[in-house]
Amino acid sequence: MRAVAPAELTEDGLVAAIADAIGTPPRRLRVGIGDDAAAWQPDAHHLELITTDMLVDGVHFRSASADAAALGHKALAKSLSDIAAMAGRPLLAIVALGVTHAIDEMWVRSFYRGMAGLAGKSRCSIAGGDIVRAPALTIAVTVVGDVRRTSMRTRSGAKGGDLVAVTGPLGLGAVGLRAVDAGDEKLSPRAANWYLKPQPRLAEGAFLGSRRAVHALMDISDGVSTDLARMARASHVDATVSGDSLYVHPEVAAMTAACGLDTEHVVLSGGDDYELLVAIDPRAYAHVASAFERRFGRPLSVIGRFEIGDGAVWIEHSGRREPLAPTGYDHLKS
Amino acid sequence: MRAVAPAELTEDGLVAAIADAIGTPPRRLRVGIGDDAAAWQPDAHHLELITTDMLVDGVHFRSASADAAALGHKALAKSLSDIAAMAGRPLLAIVALGVTHAIDEMWVRSFYRGMAGLAGKSRCSIAGGDIVRAPALTIAVTVVGDVRRTSMRTRSGAKGGDLVAVTGPLGLGAVGLRAVDAGDEKLSPRAANWYLKPQPRLAEGAFLGSRRAVHALMDISDGVSTDLARMARASHVDATVSGDSLYVHPEVAAMTAACGLDTEHVVLSGGDDYELLVAIDPRAYAHVASAFERRFGRPLSVIGRFEIGDGAVWIEHSGRREPLAPTGYDHLKS
Repeated sequence: MRAVAPAELTEDGLVAAIADAIGTPPRRLRVGIGDDAAAWQPDAHHLELITTDMLVDGVHFRSASADAAALGHKALAKSLSDIAAMAGRPLLAIVALGVTHAIDEMWVRSFYRGMAGLAGKSRCSIAGGDIVRAPALTIAVTVVGDVRRTSMRTRSGAKGGDLVAVTGPLGLGAVGLRAVDAGDEKLSPRAANWYLKPQPRLAEGAFLGSRRAVHALMDISDGVSTDLARMARASHVDATVSGDSLYVHPEVAAMTAACGLDTEHVVLSGGDDYELLVAIDPRAYAHVASAFERRFGRPLSVIGRFEIGDGAVWIEHSGRREPLAPTGYDHLKS
Repeated sequence: MRAVAPAELTEDGLVAAIADAIGTPPRRLRVGIGDDAAAWQPDAHHLELITTDMLVDGVHFRSASADAAALGHKALAKSLSDIAAMAGRPLLAIVALGVTHAIDEMWVRSFYRGMAGLAGKSRCSIAGGDIVRAPALTIAVTVVGDVRRTSMRTRSGAKGGDLVAVTGPLGLGAVGLRAVDAGDEKLSPRAANWYLKPQPRLAEGAFLGSRRAVHALMDISDGVSTDLARMARASHVDATVSGDSLYVHPEVAAMTAACGLDTEHVVLSGGDDYELLVAIDPRAYAHVASAFERRFGRPLSVIGRFEIGDGAVWIEHSGRREPLAPTGYDHLKS
């Protein structure tokens, strides 16, 4: 390791540097670095998907307050959410676990049972992995999935004129984190439960990938403001969020009001939503949204629109708009 | 996390606990937890393979003395070696990286370039991954590969009467680690280079998997004594190592002699060999070994034999044998 003072790393900046170091991807790699999952093509009709996520104690969770089974669930849910964002179906998960001396066999069993519960519901097999010693509990989950060529969606397909929609109410993860940190889970039980055991939107992703009017998908894991900016940049369009029509969960509104927090800021900056961000043709929206609501019992809620542009993101209130800064989570910023 | 004093974890003990927590593997999972890689079957003729390895600063390497490019090479080599051990072909690698504040963009570029060099030589694509903050540099590499159904070998196929063979000289990794730790790389240049940049035996694995006489394969990553015990246990046979015919690299013999170390102990206990351990029918050995040597310019060296039994491992000198303890690396022992 070199001894120079490092320049501040940012996640989005680094993705470009890595893509550069790796060089041109081979043709069989259909989607490489920078999307929710990578895609490659083993045969003419199918694409396989792969995604990996690392969770570190003290950074992504707090082991002192984390139930092992819930942690197993959540670690897998994060990667499954990436498969959902490509409209894919998960097949297989493999886990690398770095454990401290505070971890015993009971903990490991409970962790894997929590993971196996979600894996079973998601028709995903757990294929084992690696366990090593680490100074902090570290979990790296990799999931392989597949998807029909015609169903796959990436974050780069949004078009000017498309609506920005979400598959469920926003802010539960952010408020859940606060509730869990405050030891106050009972005041916001839905939010706390969503933060601890999010449900990846696999069925919703597959449903949306089968609709031609859906042009782009990604999962909201780092906060709407940050993730929408990524989709806008990848798609070379601008995006405007309508501050007046954000789809906020009632428990989120109640909690932010009680704590004197700015609901809009919490919803746009907080991570762990695990809903899907959807770019959809406005002419087909009503039809798709009505089928979506019949199927899932939730609206496919419009929160803004895309327009021709080059990656700028705006927020609009009562017809006046201003730039929206990406205030979500950056995995590398201090 | 629970507050009880944890029982000492051992790697082999934990594998059973995890398999139990996961439950019965589904049919499409042909090889699950406990082998070098997991295998699943996407169609009638092919198997896909997946393996993951986690490397942690201070446990598996020392970042203060580790060149970023060499670390990228080695992290990928470890997983490619698992694919080689199944007689497979690598297709795709995905990397989760936990970085400290001492890591800058130059380091990440150099790390990925080192990895891309080996990936290119191995016809493996790098599909990106995840980067997060961690208290110690942590690298989790997952590799997906494929293999013909008839070529795949596991560690559980050894039969009583088979010979134990290895694909190259032993001890280079162990001696290389000492040389690197002592800042003495020039005295054992081959060993130091093998420790820092091991070459996964992919071509050798594919060659051996295509021979019906080869009954079992695994890679030697934690030391012959430990890995041979794993193969013997998985195959339900006993194994005897011939102490008089261990295939030791000359540089290893020279270094251990110079340092007054027991060569045999170093060779049997040291990890990072990345040669393949082979169970082969003695009637076909001469034929296969001669083709192997023509192809690779190295002998397929016999170091012992399997016999009917239940997982015991012995070492033999001048016809007298005694139990051989697994003195290799356990990833969980203190």
